[in-house]
Amino acid sequence: MQIAMIQDKIVPVEELEPVYLDRGIFFGDGVYEVVRSYNGKIFALEEHMQRFVNSLSAIKISGVDIYQILRRVMKSFDAAGISNAKIYFHITRGSALRNHVWDADLEPNFFLTVTELEDDSEAKTKGIAVSTHPDLRWKRCDIKSLNLLANVLARQEAAQKGCGEAILVDDKDFITEGASSAFFAILGQTLQTTALTVNILPSITRKFVIRACKNIGLETMEKSLTPREASDADELFIASTTNDIIPVVRFDEKLIGDGKPGKYTKLLIQEFLSFTV
Amino acid sequence: MQIAMIQDKIVPVEELEPVYLDRGIFFGDGVYEVVRSYNGKIFALEEHMQRFVNSLSAIKISGVDIYQILRRVMKSFDAAGISNAKIYFHITRGSALRNHVWDADLEPNFFLTVTELEDDSEAKTKGIAVSTHPDLRWKRCDIKSLNLLANVLARQEAAQKGCGEAILVDDKDFITEGASSAFFAILGQTLQTTALTVNILPSITRKFVIRACKNIGLETMEKSLTPREASDADELFIASTTNDIIPVVRFDEKLIGDGKPGKYTKLLIQEFLSFTV
Repeated sequence: MQIAMIQDKIVPVEELEPVYLDRGIFFGDGVYEVVRSYNGKIFALEEHMQRFVNSLSAIKISGVDIYQILRRVMKSFDAAGISNAKIYFHITRGSALRNHVWDADLEPNFFLTVTELEDDSEAKTKGIAVSTHPDLRWKRCDIKSLNLLANVLARQEAAQKGCGEAILVDDKDFITEGASSAFFAILGQTLQTTALTVNILPSITRKFVIRACKNIGLETMEKSLTPREASDADELFIASTTNDIIPVVRFDEKLIGDGKPGKYTKLLIQEFLSFTV
Repeated sequence: MQIAMIQDKIVPVEELEPVYLDRGIFFGDGVYEVVRSYNGKIFALEEHMQRFVNSLSAIKISGVDIYQILRRVMKSFDAAGISNAKIYFHITRGSALRNHVWDADLEPNFFLTVTELEDDSEAKTKGIAVSTHPDLRWKRCDIKSLNLLANVLARQEAAQKGCGEAILVDDKDFITEGASSAFFAILGQTLQTTALTVNILPSITRKFVIRACKNIGLETMEKSLTPREASDADELFIASTTNDIIPVVRFDEKLIGDGKPGKYTKLLIQEFLSFTV
């Protein structure tokens, strides 16, 4: 008899709930998105749904009705009634006994949570420290997949050093991005950030950061920085969906500027907020 | 209220079964092993348990009683009563609301299946075709982790070409290994295979293949092959826990030898079997 065991409990395979045979857990065979709301309004939902479609397509998960997913997101957001909410959702290829090769008739699994956003006001007003870590991720970081162990290990190492983000550095000594954020430097009146390639996630927040820069009169240069260049920058910050812009005031051992959030970073935080109302 | 949604069903977060919040699915934050039995006897169990300990340690999952895991493996194998069984098990870091950084007090989750091994006799006697694919995996393939999306995508592409395995090729045009197997060439009287580095899994079957080579009088050279060198080899084969040695008779478009399993490969299959009784 084919059996499964969950902790100490033996269960016949045919009686297993499908979630235990999710290819998401066997292989990380799925993709996800995170959106947030500001004061009851979801920000940039259309852009996130488009990126989700791209991720699904990149790993060849087909047959997903994206409007159904959109309705589920809206319905669950309404049901939660949380004003500043973080909405996470993933789709995996489906549930089946473990086999690398998949059957065409698998039904994708959908899972979502709506949770209260943590208060980021201290990070926003005081800034955070970050540390550099080798970028050990796979070669398709443009896909927002569930293969995130390299990100998790880097974030944990950073946290143990008292840092709020891990900045990933590739083999050629260039910064790619943060473990769960985009990374930006301001040098003079120019914003500098990695160009979009298969090595980094096409961050949606990044797009709005670049728009905010234009609005306040900063130039934008899409070019990777070395850790040395970053530590010599006038200002640094990270950006992500859940926390938009967070100033970086320490980079490894080096204080940035006077160790307080920079003037342009503060202007960008204000400008970004104006997009969300 | 913080809520979750499973397919179309809304559930309060606090009523979710822990399996839905498994870090294995959010991040692939776990490690696994596969062992098999030959005629009611599990092969190389000690070696697999040791590698599992190494994987747990590499991703910093602590507090696992490895003897308890061993007892679970034995108990479930006995309960299944399958003579030629495939035993898969994984441990993930635990269940919690999604956050890259983990809490020290998480309880690891254990999951296992015992299933009937598929009949591989046709592959063994006739050999299989393989195709080459870029190795897109992360930089710690020595850890047997649940981050396997690159492997899955390569295997599926191979299957669509009628191939039984995907052979992964790195940026420098060297073969690393198969998507779920080790890869070997025989040139003259020498077995050649990739040396063990962080880029490949320390295959346990590989160790027994090398022992079998010694027994039948072949030399062993640990040196990566290019696809060109592999396609010019006298014989090729892959090796994995579930199927031990499988001859490769076509490499991309090129027939190997006379398109039938090679003489040394057949000897090695026999020699390997002698280890399992």
